[in-house]
Amino acid sequence: MDTQSFDTICALSSGSAQAAISLIRLSGPDAFKIAQIIFMGKHFKAAESQTLHFGKCIDPASMKTIDEVLLSKFIGPKSYTGEDMVEFSIHGSPYIQAQMIQVLIAQGARLANPGEFSQRAFLNGKMDLSQAEAVCDLISATTPQMHALALKQLKGGFSLKIKALRDRLIEFASLMELELDFSEEDVEFADRSHLEQLLSNIIEESKILCDSFKLGNAIKKGIPVIIVGAPNVGKSTLLNTLLNEQKAIVSDVAGTTRDVIEDTLNIKGISFRFMDTAGIRESEDKVEKIGIKKTKDYIDTAQIIINVKDHQTGYVLTEKEIQQHQNLIYVTNKSDLNPQKKKQNDQSIFISAKENTGIEELKTELLNLYNLSAPTNDQIVITSQRHYASLINALTPLEKSLEDLKHKVSGDLIAQNLRYAIHHLGEITGEISNEDLLDSIFSNFCIGK
Amino acid sequence: MDTQSFDTICALSSGSAQAAISLIRLSGPDAFKIAQIIFMGKHFKAAESQTLHFGKCIDPASMKTIDEVLLSKFIGPKSYTGEDMVEFSIHGSPYIQAQMIQVLIAQGARLANPGEFSQRAFLNGKMDLSQAEAVCDLISATTPQMHALALKQLKGGFSLKIKALRDRLIEFASLMELELDFSEEDVEFADRSHLEQLLSNIIEESKILCDSFKLGNAIKKGIPVIIVGAPNVGKSTLLNTLLNEQKAIVSDVAGTTRDVIEDTLNIKGISFRFMDTAGIRESEDKVEKIGIKKTKDYIDTAQIIINVKDHQTGYVLTEKEIQQHQNLIYVTNKSDLNPQKKKQNDQSIFISAKENTGIEELKTELLNLYNLSAPTNDQIVITSQRHYASLINALTPLEKSLEDLKHKVSGDLIAQNLRYAIHHLGEITGEISNEDLLDSIFSNFCIGK
Repeated sequence: MDTQSFDTICALSSGSAQAAISLIRLSGPDAFKIAQIIFMGKHFKAAESQTLHFGKCIDPASMKTIDEVLLSKFIGPKSYTGEDMVEFSIHGSPYIQAQMIQVLIAQGARLANPGEFSQRAFLNGKMDLSQAEAVCDLISATTPQMHALALKQLKGGFSLKIKALRDRLIEFASLMELELDFSEEDVEFADRSHLEQLLSNIIEESKILCDSFKLGNAIKKGIPVIIVGAPNVGKSTLLNTLLNEQKAIVSDVAGTTRDVIEDTLNIKGISFRFMDTAGIRESEDKVEKIGIKKTKDYIDTAQIIINVKDHQTGYVLTEKEIQQHQNLIYVTNKSDLNPQKKKQNDQSIFISAKENTGIEELKTELLNLYNLSAPTNDQIVITSQRHYASLINALTPLEKSLEDLKHKVSGDLIAQNLRYAIHHLGEITGEISNEDLLDSIFSNFCIGK
Repeated sequence: MDTQSFDTICALSSGSAQAAISLIRLSGPDAFKIAQIIFMGKHFKAAESQTLHFGKCIDPASMKTIDEVLLSKFIGPKSYTGEDMVEFSIHGSPYIQAQMIQVLIAQGARLANPGEFSQRAFLNGKMDLSQAEAVCDLISATTPQMHALALKQLKGGFSLKIKALRDRLIEFASLMELELDFSEEDVEFADRSHLEQLLSNIIEESKILCDSFKLGNAIKKGIPVIIVGAPNVGKSTLLNTLLNEQKAIVSDVAGTTRDVIEDTLNIKGISFRFMDTAGIRESEDKVEKIGIKKTKDYIDTAQIIINVKDHQTGYVLTEKEIQQHQNLIYVTNKSDLNPQKKKQNDQSIFISAKENTGIEELKTELLNLYNLSAPTNDQIVITSQRHYASLINALTPLEKSLEDLKHKVSGDLIAQNLRYAIHHLGEITGEISNEDLLDSIFSNFCIGK
């Protein structure tokens, strides 16, 4: 692509708070021209790429010094954006940050939009779209799992897989389209049995990737854990004890919690998203009834259910509901009020949310359940709603093509469906993109990235 | 000094908040050894100083990737600290920051103390003490004036001046001490009239520098402006209007304000520190009396006094007090209640703090008064309490020496006083320093600087 069509952009790329050092980026065709005007350092102009230069930056209008800076020079395409780039390492003062940005703008640079450096990296072929998205995920990762998935995606494993599937589809689609040109001769350039095998493989791999989204999304947002039980068994107290804060209102009035209260907790590097719910019972209270309905909806999205009873009431989930959810933890709360020993057939964890006993055992069980489904080292896990949607969109025409193949439907119809699938797979890596899509992706980025 | 006696330190030098990029510094004898273990980049080992390298950083314990980073290599003494140094430009994620620091520490680096990089720069002769202190001032500068003074000090003009004065004193003191070895021969190596001239010059220059501290301190902390007047003329309302917030409690009860309420306001880049005071009147209220006493103390430290009256009361400052303070602004408040025209001989600014009228005129007058005393471009202004104290400590023996010279006191006594002065001047630039002094200076720095 033509990098000459871009203007020159600048932004503060480190945090804006007072610190030892701040970093300002400048990228685009005029980056070096502007740097040479404001930077009074020796040797910068003739210097090679990937070199560091100490000197002072001045405001050319007043000739006043703004700061003593360390300048990094990157000659395109050997830079993050693929363009000529300069990074100014300045003293970490908000005043100096503002002065530097003002001078860069006065010299013709424009303040970069969020993610615009990464957007240029994508447009200049330095990374594909899913890699660019990984940059954003990497910065916001707060647990080892999120971090590992983002790094893997940044490295490009996922993109390579999608590209490989797509390239093979393109090859077949082209051969089929070629057949159309020779339709009177009734030739088959594309081997139907090979294509059938290929489609089966691609559909299978796509489904595995789609399935991984539930896990990927859970890792990104926290493994959803729902706390359910009869009213007043101490669900809100358990949430508060787990989070170690007074998040949910606790009272001895049954039906206190109506909204679903949620918050995440990091247990040994795994992020769990706990949801405290309205106690399930027959209720006449209109608001409480809505809450109980909501609880039942949330049960379907939860990955782990903590099923709480106390010494007075039993579990509220029915046998049928239990069968649908393998990841169930049975908990008997208020062990402080009921200090008798467990019955022999009681598999539940005895806790006292109020006295903070048994909570470690509960956490260990949560980790055990997570580990059963945790991704393996070489497993590719989708974490992006956008990638998931594109895969789902590709699956429909893929399955249609496979069915058509089996029914010996004519090549042009199959080729058309293959093209739809190729289009949707291309959206993931950005081989197919449009301005709206790019804007919506990169607007979620940090300024300066 | 021997850089080999230092260990290897690391710190996060950019802000810790989530951002596009963060910067981690590593400095000391093992900086390159550690970098080679964790950085998987080509060419780093053999690379020249002042070069940039892209690659990934791993945790050697798990061989897991931590981040893709840009590494800056500085071979000592061509670095900020004067030691071998590496800067890691990483993705701005708090999670990655923590991982990187943990791995550096696991490889033998130590978390740096606040200002420890600058302290090493000082100890390795990369900058003197007053320059190192300027780094801290530069980062915290919030107005053009503070910024300009800190940059000037960082450039070293002040240090050079102090060093030059001190070197000449050392020369004379040495000559005088030499005379002691030849005391029986009654020679005078040190020309007494030259020394007298020199001492006069040094004393004069030191006094000018000391005098500049009042201005320097005012620029650093905000020009102190005190608002005085009789009770209930609207001083607190004026403060609130200037600051554009409800800082001081306002009521129509005379004597509402007792403590001195202060806050700074930036007017066209100049920082003013406004102090609202208890109204001055005869009072029986014990707390109010203490407040009035305090007001009178503050008047002495203020650089500008806003003397407020309203249409009912007059000014409370006496003629004598006015003569002591040249920078007085007369203000007549409550012009909304008293819409008559000014009397011909009334030089005061008519304002209504309540209606926010006349406030711009008052601000302009404040700027005018500041500009009368603003430092010129080549004027050296002291901003540090420590430098001021050292100069004052040097002045006493300097003046004693000058007096002794005039009274033909013997050279050994004069030389001793010169040594005292030389000692105190040396404290400013750090030629004389001790661990406690350095610790107290650098502990005020940011981490990572």
